[in-house]
Amino acid sequence: MLKFLDAGESHGSCYVGIIDGMPAGLEIETDSVDRLLFERQNVYGRGGRMAIEKDSLLILSGVRGGKTTGSPIGLMIKNRDYENWKEYMQTMVGIKEGKEVTVPRPGHADLAGMMKYGCDDARDIIERASARETVMRTAIGGIAMLLLKTFGIAVRAHVTRIGRATAVCDNLDDAYWARVENSPVRCGDANAKGEMIAEIDRAKEAGDTVGGIVQTAVLNVPAGLGSHTAWDDRLDARLSAACMSVQAVKGVEIGMGFEAAERYGSEVHDEIFYGGGKFYRKTNNAGGIESGISNGETIIINCAVKPIPTLSQPLASVDVRTKGPAKAHSERSDICAVPAASIVLGAVAAWEIAAAFLDKFGGDTIDEIKNAYGYHITRMGKL
Amino acid sequence: MLKFLDAGESHGSCYVGIIDGMPAGLEIETDSVDRLLFERQNVYGRGGRMAIEKDSLLILSGVRGGKTTGSPIGLMIKNRDYENWKEYMQTMVGIKEGKEVTVPRPGHADLAGMMKYGCDDARDIIERASARETVMRTAIGGIAMLLLKTFGIAVRAHVTRIGRATAVCDNLDDAYWARVENSPVRCGDANAKGEMIAEIDRAKEAGDTVGGIVQTAVLNVPAGLGSHTAWDDRLDARLSAACMSVQAVKGVEIGMGFEAAERYGSEVHDEIFYGGGKFYRKTNNAGGIESGISNGETIIINCAVKPIPTLSQPLASVDVRTKGPAKAHSERSDICAVPAASIVLGAVAAWEIAAAFLDKFGGDTIDEIKNAYGYHITRMGKL
Amino acid sequence: MLKFLDAGESHGSCYVGIIDGMPAGLEIETDSVDRLLFERQNVYGRGGRMAIEKDSLLILSGVRGGKTTGSPIGLMIKNRDYENWKEYMQTMVGIKEGKEVTVPRPGHADLAGMMKYGCDDARDIIERASARETVMRTAIGGIAMLLLKTFGIAVRAHVTRIGRATAVCDNLDDAYWARVENSPVRCGDANAKGEMIAEIDRAKEAGDTVGGIVQTAVLNVPAGLGSHTAWDDRLDARLSAACMSVQAVKGVEIGMGFEAAERYGSEVHDEIFYGGGKFYRKTNNAGGIESGISNGETIIINCAVKPIPTLSQPLASVDVRTKGPAKAHSERSDICAVPAASIVLGAVAAWEIAAAFLDKFGGDTIDEIKNAYGYHITRMGKL
Amino acid sequence: MLKFLDAGESHGSCYVGIIDGMPAGLEIETDSVDRLLFERQNVYGRGGRMAIEKDSLLILSGVRGGKTTGSPIGLMIKNRDYENWKEYMQTMVGIKEGKEVTVPRPGHADLAGMMKYGCDDARDIIERASARETVMRTAIGGIAMLLLKTFGIAVRAHVTRIGRATAVCDNLDDAYWARVENSPVRCGDANAKGEMIAEIDRAKEAGDTVGGIVQTAVLNVPAGLGSHTAWDDRLDARLSAACMSVQAVKGVEIGMGFEAAERYGSEVHDEIFYGGGKFYRKTNNAGGIESGISNGETIIINCAVKPIPTLSQPLASVDVRTKGPAKAHSERSDICAVPAASIVLGAVAAWEIAAAFLDKFGGDTIDEIKNAYGYHITRMGKL
Repeated sequence: MLKFLDAGESHGSCYVGIIDGMPAGLEIETDSVDRLLFERQNVYGRGGRMAIEKDSLLILSGVRGGKTTGSPIGLMIKNRDYENWKEYMQTMVGIKEGKEVTVPRPGHADLAGMMKYGCDDARDIIERASARETVMRTAIGGIAMLLLKTFGIAVRAHVTRIGRATAVCDNLDDAYWARVENSPVRCGDANAKGEMIAEIDRAKEAGDTVGGIVQTAVLNVPAGLGSHTAWDDRLDARLSAACMSVQAVKGVEIGMGFEAAERYGSEVHDEIFYGGGKFYRKTNNAGGIESGISNGETIIINCAVKPIPTLSQPLASVDVRTKGPAKAHSERSDICAVPAASIVLGAVAAWEIAAAFLDKFGGDTIDEIKNAYGYHITRMGKL
Repeated sequence: MLKFLDAGESHGSCYVGIIDGMPAGLEIETDSVDRLLFERQNVYGRGGRMAIEKDSLLILSGVRGGKTTGSPIGLMIKNRDYENWKEYMQTMVGIKEGKEVTVPRPGHADLAGMMKYGCDDARDIIERASARETVMRTAIGGIAMLLLKTFGIAVRAHVTRIGRATAVCDNLDDAYWARVENSPVRCGDANAKGEMIAEIDRAKEAGDTVGGIVQTAVLNVPAGLGSHTAWDDRLDARLSAACMSVQAVKGVEIGMGFEAAERYGSEVHDEIFYGGGKFYRKTNNAGGIESGISNGETIIINCAVKPIPTLSQPLASVDVRTKGPAKAHSERSDICAVPAASIVLGAVAAWEIAAAFLDKFGGDTIDEIKNAYGYHITRMGKL
Repeated sequence: MLKFLDAGESHGSCYVGIIDGMPAGLEIETDSVDRLLFERQNVYGRGGRMAIEKDSLLILSGVRGGKTTGSPIGLMIKNRDYENWKEYMQTMVGIKEGKEVTVPRPGHADLAGMMKYGCDDARDIIERASARETVMRTAIGGIAMLLLKTFGIAVRAHVTRIGRATAVCDNLDDAYWARVENSPVRCGDANAKGEMIAEIDRAKEAGDTVGGIVQTAVLNVPAGLGSHTAWDDRLDARLSAACMSVQAVKGVEIGMGFEAAERYGSEVHDEIFYGGGKFYRKTNNAGGIESGISNGETIIINCAVKPIPTLSQPLASVDVRTKGPAKAHSERSDICAVPAASIVLGAVAAWEIAAAFLDKFGGDTIDEIKNAYGYHITRMGKL
Repeated sequence: MLKFLDAGESHGSCYVGIIDGMPAGLEIETDSVDRLLFERQNVYGRGGRMAIEKDSLLILSGVRGGKTTGSPIGLMIKNRDYENWKEYMQTMVGIKEGKEVTVPRPGHADLAGMMKYGCDDARDIIERASARETVMRTAIGGIAMLLLKTFGIAVRAHVTRIGRATAVCDNLDDAYWARVENSPVRCGDANAKGEMIAEIDRAKEAGDTVGGIVQTAVLNVPAGLGSHTAWDDRLDARLSAACMSVQAVKGVEIGMGFEAAERYGSEVHDEIFYGGGKFYRKTNNAGGIESGISNGETIIINCAVKPIPTLSQPLASVDVRTKGPAKAHSERSDICAVPAASIVLGAVAAWEIAAAFLDKFGGDTIDEIKNAYGYHITRMGKL
């Protein structure tokens, strides 16, 4: 069973991750992972911190000469900013005063975390709750993408809305995805792109932040991943948890999502056709998943990303020590996390698809998985 | 750790469930669980099957004289309809022909399940994929509600949309919830209720089905459940998976959900105030969860429920044996699952909240948990 | 991932079990499972309870017409004795007084359980702690054996010691196993068999109980199950937990076990040879597992089974209500659990091997697994 | 739920570990952990590698200013020897030839691992299978010991046999444990100590290796950890898996272990007495666990450690490439792992006890756990 743990704090020395259960014989190249980390950092709307960091993945173990061995994969991403924070964040030596946070930010973990962990300095909460933690989850998803790529599966994610600016994206072809890669807001619709940038600029001027929507598409997933037989094996349930766990996500849709709530069944369900030796659909309102099982169409996930809770014009809050009203703590932060979140959401989707893929095809080595995958594909054609 | 498994098929002899990890000393009364099962069956829009079943929970073990002992709880709900299906569904004796399903229904597990399990009769798929399976998950959630009730936590769910009919529900007070309980579509807005019924009637006349939205509210949840420290401990992630795993759900929102994607941070985040010895908010756009941790406000979840895939005017499909076009299989079914889904969604939310509650407060007995809970509540007041 | 839960009490109405993750297409025949249940009951040394019970497995779901469907398998075994205990053991109606246990038995769960669950009546503890619970685990292991049998893997268990009587069992051939099946103490050594019976008789006359050793052999396990890469994937760790979890087991050995502690490496390790297209050993001191991975030799496990804690001449104890000295509670019980434990230990080993087997070969159907298994076997020949 | 993952290879750059679920507010001091790592290295019978390494634990995250924050704890231990192996072991750059292992060592993972992972160079297997991996598990157990120490629980481990030399250790008092700490073979019996050293010397001279027995004692464990209610919650099952997962362990006993198999019940079970406000025993044959629950007595575990499989006078084996007979690969190794294994076995036992402790007492902070622990202790006294 594919699983991972990760650890690390925003201003600590590094993030570490361990992947357990990746088969032997997978070719690893960190360039594609570093490209994800670069894109996560270098999109429009990010704050000053990203000028300090140049995230790059170190592989510590589980890979030898560029190939996985089947052993757990140890990962590290260093925080350059640690040098500036060392006295406040070191693990085993007494820390210096001066970075306490006693006025929680509305919308962030600060107050809930203090109440959970019984502390009156939110620093210990916010360091882990920070969305910078997704740098490691992105790298881990990037490793999962390498497995998927071996079987022709590709994960793409783009921004379809920022504030009031919405993209038109009816035709997700290669040209569209190429435009996404070249867009500072990761949007392939040229008109919307400009409006999105304007939305971010407006928010910035107002000392505010702004939300948006990310759409993830997983291409070429074979039918048969996930299962209807148990609630926690359902692929949509797993994807939903993974996406909702990303900082700032407040909503997840598969396929048509909330729009299906307004419709009749005859308008929603994707009729089934057969031709060229396989079953196919002309529509994909289901978003590639029926009853928790991939059906062979593109998997489509939409996620609502709320505005970042750290505002340069801070909101009303309370100092937890004095109990008096105070302006919320303001830590250096981004204006809009949506473009960066698109990278993260693609990565966590990749991870879940990879896990479901290995659940179905088993195997300790890429060769074994290729054999199992081939058998499944052939059998489906004979159904 | 609280966990469960369930088994059973729609036309099999029964559903069984096992709950592991429920503390000792919890008073069990099955009336409240049976009331949920009754409501799940007796709402507007359900089909003929529900005239046959009178669901009632049998507790087989783990409870003695009305109190849990700490041992696993064995549960059973019988299917009355089994008598009519025995020859086709018995487990250990050869089955009679005549109930094969070879034309998959668009929108259901049928085709994806056949491709996954390599069979050309969808009967083995649809029997488990059927939403009737939620009868056991509802009962299991009903047991979880008894634990929550001991600590003053209540779970409420209602219908806020069916097709084009939407409820106005700004004030979720006791009177509103009372109206929900008395509404055949589980909607507390009298105007919307009538429109919802009309939507269902229209769909029925057209041989069609219709979707909607369910809102779940969990009242009086203490701050501090879930955690920001690991992705799969986040309460929103867990709730999201649980809700998305319910048949027909295609979207999940926490609090403001997708609307937050259109807004500025200053419009979204719930400012923090202090008074009467505790922190409070005047708004609840976060839906009671910040960074994966409950914050003490009501937890609000919205779920999009798609129209049921079984239409009496069936959609175009393919016979998997002949590969020729055919009308989709039509099994006796409901017109609108949304009111029934509201019972199920409340139950699965209750389960996840209970699991997170026990994660925090530990303990093998209700007494121990009360001690831990009291300590936490007192400490929060001192923060 | 293969997993199960079970529930039930010794004098409750029934035991239930749910198996999740068994592939589709496995032929189930309950005769072989019932044969295990029969043997578990009808061996020498058992007490009066077994005259009441005639254990038989009911399959409630997950199997249709004798074949698994991939859905969770619901299982039930009824307790005939419940009729005599109903008033004291019913789940939802107030129970009658008269079966309280306030004097804990040394060696059993009674006192530790009361301290854990904060109760002063051990009845709620002993009903679940009773070794009768293994009736369901035996059935679940019996289902796992059917999967293993499909791939030529067989699990055998026999008694090698009771008290001071030890078997000579150098040659575990078919004739030996046949003698085991025909022996009331499940020992294939004719001399030892008689001594074992005499040991049990002596204990019975003395109002005492007696322990022994069970050896389990798993034949024809392919190399490559389990893994050295993570501690909890090691096959020996998993088997060890499963065996130690069986009531009364106090020691587990793989292969040479504790004898290896007294030896030099040159006396212990099984040299490697090649011939007939495969690697082989002339000795099997490792017991078929090296570094947590099956190596293709027979897996050998020895388990120490302590004497049953319920003595008809009870030991000194304390009444937990009065705190005064008292003779331990005496519930109708067996004299020697070792022959019955051999059935249980074979079953739990079968379960773990099956789980590791599916971990390696994946697959949702028997056909897929056969394809993956064939690929592995062929590849090993080419190594 | 307390859990961990670890990664790393024997000649890779480092081992990393991540602990998830450790409560906030635990004081961490690495000196006691480093002391374990030192003892693991600096005992009699170790080989040349240990002259190169000076193991020391780095804490990367999850701890701030010497206290846990509740966030995952990132750990690292560097391999000094990596400098000598870099060209052969680097993760992302092509590796140099010259360290292939094609003749598997009997008794080690080599052949089974190659068959599992389909490779003909055992280097990728042996690097992870090496017992050096226990350096990280020792550190992780060392962190668990700090939690246990907060509640007065202490873990001690010593060597009771090496080859034919056995210790007399009837009185495990403080003086005994002090002698263990000062003994190069970690044995508190002065006579046996000398014989043990002689056994190791004899093995070394003969180019051989030698096995032994480690006993672990966990002092002051409260009654009520683990549970009889489900097989995988049983404390003995969990401890057994943890111990058996340690390299070279082939047998595990709780308390009297295999000796109980030779005895009558009246000789084995520990009678129950009451005095001084609590229940107690005069004997501890159960080894502190009855029916999978700690009973308040010292937990006693014995483990059989087989001789190390790497012999300087290597055993017969086969070259997997040529299939011709060959002497097994000889990698620099120890003569006797038993004293070092005692450190590791104490550490893994500490981990399991800590996990069961947190299962019972829950809580996100040390304060909460102290409250829950106090409640339990008080209640037990009132039983």
